[in-house]
Amino acid sequence: MDATFTPIGVVRTPYARPEDAPSQATASADQAAVIEIDPAYADGLDGLAGFSHVWLVTWLHGSAGRAPLRVVPNALRGTGREMGVFATRAPWRPNPIGISLVRLRAVDGPRLQVEGIDLVDGTPVLDLKPYFADADLPDGAVRVGWAEGS
Amino acid sequence: MDATFTPIGVVRTPYARPEDAPSQATASADQAAVIEIDPAYADGLDGLAGFSHVWLVTWLHGSAGRAPLRVVPNALRGTGREMGVFATRAPWRPNPIGISLVRLRAVDGPRLQVEGIDLVDGTPVLDLKPYFADADLPDGAVRVGWAEGS
Repeated sequence: MDATFTPIGVVRTPYARPEDAPSQATASADQAAVIEIDPAYADGLDGLAGFSHVWLVTWLHGSAGRAPLRVVPNALRGTGREMGVFATRAPWRPNPIGISLVRLRAVDGPRLQVEGIDLVDGTPVLDLKPYFADADLPDGAVRVGWAEGS
Repeated sequence: MDATFTPIGVVRTPYARPEDAPSQATASADQAAVIEIDPAYADGLDGLAGFSHVWLVTWLHGSAGRAPLRVVPNALRGTGREMGVFATRAPWRPNPIGISLVRLRAVDGPRLQVEGIDLVDGTPVLDLKPYFADADLPDGAVRVGWAEGS
């Protein structure tokens, strides 16, 4: 059974094309952007302004229709190595859903001012969630597989 | 324009009903569970075993059709306070997509052995992503709004 979602808003960034946007690992942490939420959902934003960091769940719609199961991560370009797509954060995925941790600077009605975004202008927003260390910080040692040392 | 996604697998946990599952903030960190990926996607898992922690992106299908814009988080029960749903991690959301950080114990073909899961048995899996501190650790001070001190 398929899941169908209706975007709740859109991301406004200076990046018109995927090749203009920084890759996630090197995203300019200070790049400002705006998230425009459909005013119909504005009540759902109450209380969000108290959080410093927010997960932005997006539909990477520019990647739809392109979903190889093996990809070459940026860090491995030129090495001849490729990885399973689920071992990477590549945007072209069987279900192109992105999760981006952004700093929340201000909430002006249905407009969120954020920083640290790596998404193309016009990316549809599916969900927003507050960052909680309890849930979102890894416990124990972190290993990052193929990206170790890269 | 709506986004339609086809689940790539399913979560197997001991929790038959939502009320059996721990809430995210208090999830038993050691609860073992299995993620069964459709073998058609098995090539996409190559390289994942080298990662200690994985984001599980799920369709919280049990919450579909119930999406109030204001909810009472567990931590605020009995206080009379409610919050906008996007300021909470409540499962009933306009687009019921869950993100769960789990510890990856083993990859056996298309079956992942994981720990630290708070999802109901049978929850459809939409995506898997490796955890990267560069992308997933907040920079700067973290504030958690209504949850401060709770």
